[in-house]
Amino acid sequence: MASSASEPLAISLGDPAGIGPEVLAKCWDNRGSFNLPPFVAIGDPRAIGAVWDGPIEIITDPREADAAFDVGLPLIQLMSAEADTPGHPSVAGAHCSLDALELAVGLARSGSATAVVTGPVAKEQLYAIGFAHPGQTEFVAERCGVASANVAMMLAGPTLRTIPVTTHLRLADVPQTLTSTLIESRGRAVLRGLQRNFGIADPRLAIAGLNPHSGEGGSLGREEIEMIQPAIAALADEGWRVTGPHPADTMFHTAARANYDAALCMYHDQALIPVKALHFEDAVNVTLGLPIVRTAPDHGTAFDIAGQDRADPRPMAAAIRMAAENAAHRAAAA
Amino acid sequence: MASSASEPLAISLGDPAGIGPEVLAKCWDNRGSFNLPPFVAIGDPRAIGAVWDGPIEIITDPREADAAFDVGLPLIQLMSAEADTPGHPSVAGAHCSLDALELAVGLARSGSATAVVTGPVAKEQLYAIGFAHPGQTEFVAERCGVASANVAMMLAGPTLRTIPVTTHLRLADVPQTLTSTLIESRGRAVLRGLQRNFGIADPRLAIAGLNPHSGEGGSLGREEIEMIQPAIAALADEGWRVTGPHPADTMFHTAARANYDAALCMYHDQALIPVKALHFEDAVNVTLGLPIVRTAPDHGTAFDIAGQDRADPRPMAAAIRMAAENAAHRAAAA
Repeated sequence: MASSASEPLAISLGDPAGIGPEVLAKCWDNRGSFNLPPFVAIGDPRAIGAVWDGPIEIITDPREADAAFDVGLPLIQLMSAEADTPGHPSVAGAHCSLDALELAVGLARSGSATAVVTGPVAKEQLYAIGFAHPGQTEFVAERCGVASANVAMMLAGPTLRTIPVTTHLRLADVPQTLTSTLIESRGRAVLRGLQRNFGIADPRLAIAGLNPHSGEGGSLGREEIEMIQPAIAALADEGWRVTGPHPADTMFHTAARANYDAALCMYHDQALIPVKALHFEDAVNVTLGLPIVRTAPDHGTAFDIAGQDRADPRPMAAAIRMAAENAAHRAAAA
Repeated sequence: MASSASEPLAISLGDPAGIGPEVLAKCWDNRGSFNLPPFVAIGDPRAIGAVWDGPIEIITDPREADAAFDVGLPLIQLMSAEADTPGHPSVAGAHCSLDALELAVGLARSGSATAVVTGPVAKEQLYAIGFAHPGQTEFVAERCGVASANVAMMLAGPTLRTIPVTTHLRLADVPQTLTSTLIESRGRAVLRGLQRNFGIADPRLAIAGLNPHSGEGGSLGREEIEMIQPAIAALADEGWRVTGPHPADTMFHTAARANYDAALCMYHDQALIPVKALHFEDAVNVTLGLPIVRTAPDHGTAFDIAGQDRADPRPMAAAIRMAAENAAHRAAAA
């Protein structure tokens, strides 16, 4: 079944004790000023009720979301085994957050939702119930039947999109984990993602070096020569517009950013430092390489401020808007 | 001899074939709009004449600079063995650039100049004539009798100052090069520098972690626990206001930057990516830990555009202004 404008975005609430329920409720409250399309939340209504006294519209079919959206926050109900207190996560809440994630992905896979936005989960509690993935991204990839090397985690802000080749590793392990093949796979996922999700027909990818000054021709490291340049050559041979390896410190200023649509970085902080320095409130986590559109706000559960009406809904709103835009680009090309 | 307002800043031209002469001449041209104090250039007047047709005032005593500054660009002449063509460096030019650097440092050491600003040099040519330092910073430190572990290279922009603990190393060598002692020494140099050069009585230093998410309590690396936390504790024991280790990706956005006066980073790109992303045109290289004030524009010789009237003088202007401000803070405290 093909998706159409009448299907909503599906949003998993994330951990019931985190700030996911609060930021989503605030998004519905501000749906007009935030310019948000209809969405349906998936999770335990008690998690929202604990932090918000607005109207919740319980629905069972995503197609009801469109009409319900003007009346209250549309929600497909997945009850947790216990009602958590904000700021105090439990294994029951972790189970609930995982069920919500799975249902959201299933709805998008079947065409009943146009895209998935995922609220923040509690990794420690997920690990306690046997969750074996580093994070939601890898879980979603597996549920979609895609190998994790072929997906890419993009952090997208209004003027900069970056993607780390390696993610949650000790810095000392980065050089030995990088391979030409991995750089190439991630690069290809990003380039195809720029086409499919962002509607950029002939995307430009800038690839960073690993070492200071991009290795200075080998005197400050040979990874650029031995791994990064071959990956760039391979992608260029396929006809992609790829440049680099660029010294990482001079590729993120305004004039440099005008030369590419996304920057592929070698490690976590190389990618996340510049985009969060520039776009802390509105950078969105986008998973590329999936058969579905998936975005997420770039923050965690923030248990320390949960239930205190202090959570900023703007990152969730940015994730919702970007999911809708990505889905529209895919629908236009289909 | 104590410095006073009547002594100028001393500016070494850098390599005669690089963009140093051009950006300095443009600074003199725009001395009013750039709000620049009197300075004296040191180097070969032919290097300036090759790229600029404005007036040069040859002087022999820095004290003449103040009066000469309204008439032309004051210059203490150090002739190169040959006149270079812009964009084509030579070993003669490298010798000349080194002599100019040495004289500028000597003038500041003796109190005949209030501060030193250094133009960009050609490292390859310097190495060819036996220069044994990684860069000008280490040379200046040695000439001032300071061990290089006790100086710190700060990159200072209007809203962010960062300092790398390690500098020009392969990324793979960073973890094994870091020690608690080195982090502590650099941190102390920075804290004292914030007092002396920036007039901040009780400076706040934020120290970054090495690994993603600052190691996540040890599961993504133990350098935070074994090296960075002990250094922070040692500095705190001395009464300094030091925080961290902070996850590097969330310490450079606007709200986070309000919590510290400088950020101490573990490696080159961790420090330089955020400050250049935010302040590419006006970030200034400041050497802390010296008996003199030394700043530099944060760019190289740019031989590829030398002599084409394309070089941007704003970084040099920012370096000159910051040298004057740093010198004024020191004079006020003396």
